[in-house]
Amino acid sequence: MKFCSHCGRPVSLKTPAGDHLPRHVCEGCGTVHYQNPKLVVGCVPEHEGRILLCRRAIQPRLGYWTIPAGFMENGETSQEGARRESREEALAEVEIGSLLAVVHVLHADQVHVMFRARLAVPQFGVGAETSEVMLCDEADVPWQDIAFRSVDFALRQYFEDRRLGLEQHHFTTFDWRKPAA
Amino acid sequence: MKFCSHCGRPVSLKTPAGDHLPRHVCEGCGTVHYQNPKLVVGCVPEHEGRILLCRRAIQPRLGYWTIPAGFMENGETSQEGARRESREEALAEVEIGSLLAVVHVLHADQVHVMFRARLAVPQFGVGAETSEVMLCDEADVPWQDIAFRSVDFALRQYFEDRRLGLEQHHFTTFDWRKPAA
Repeated sequence: MKFCSHCGRPVSLKTPAGDHLPRHVCEGCGTVHYQNPKLVVGCVPEHEGRILLCRRAIQPRLGYWTIPAGFMENGETSQEGARRESREEALAEVEIGSLLAVVHVLHADQVHVMFRARLAVPQFGVGAETSEVMLCDEADVPWQDIAFRSVDFALRQYFEDRRLGLEQHHFTTFDWRKPAA
Repeated sequence: MKFCSHCGRPVSLKTPAGDHLPRHVCEGCGTVHYQNPKLVVGCVPEHEGRILLCRRAIQPRLGYWTIPAGFMENGETSQEGARRESREEALAEVEIGSLLAVVHVLHADQVHVMFRARLAVPQFGVGAETSEVMLCDEADVPWQDIAFRSVDFALRQYFEDRRLGLEQHHFTTFDWRKPAA
């Protein structure tokens, strides 16, 4: 951020009075521009025991497999966002179920929220950002080619809970700014 | 948003190719400026059956009661944010527990995430944005003077679950753009 989105004049990094962190503050009108984590919402759609995966047709991680997920929009709930992403990326109409995972992706300033979902009818297709969509059994999940660590985490918790007959939710944190423990 | 934060030139609302919603797009450098919901994180700290409430010393809802909560920052988890807010608003060191509530506040483009929390030692005080802090029994909660509907929701679920001996999480949605059902 270099310029004020309100008045167009330059911003500089300074800690406002009473604040505890440096912010982008406009040198002209004084507006403080806060930057906060963005929500990514997605789901693991299941149909008769198999789950729906999408192969990415866009960067980052082009060619790798993921679940339907994307940035949450203003004006929608996280469940509505996850359903919209399933429609956009996999042309699939899903019913969103219970909360599965909340992943703090600190190096990306993102929070990923994933739900369980049901694909009642096995109808799906290739959305604009997708090159291939498949329903696959747990044994066939391409673990080496999963696009994002948060998706890997959500899928592993999904199958583990399914084995246990539970629908729990799981928090975790990834931070590539720090070496792995 | 009137100006591009990258180059300072004017932005206009248009739907980018391949997108489905109007965005602020720079007429100069073409940058698309997405706007997404912001996360507010908070907690209900409990000490020996009583919960901690803060009276707001700032707008909006000055003089009304709330729980420690505020905008999540980049670089922190939602639990860390809730702990930080307890420290800032109530000078209280809390241990964050289970997920209590996720409230989609559609008219404000916010998602409020509230946790249960434990205040091990009854030490607290008045932070910069707070005029009064109290530990109170359920019977003494000033329900008529709770600052925000999301906080009212979280507190009611908190006490209800405590009666049931459960620690569930609860999703809900508020939208002042629509008339109440």
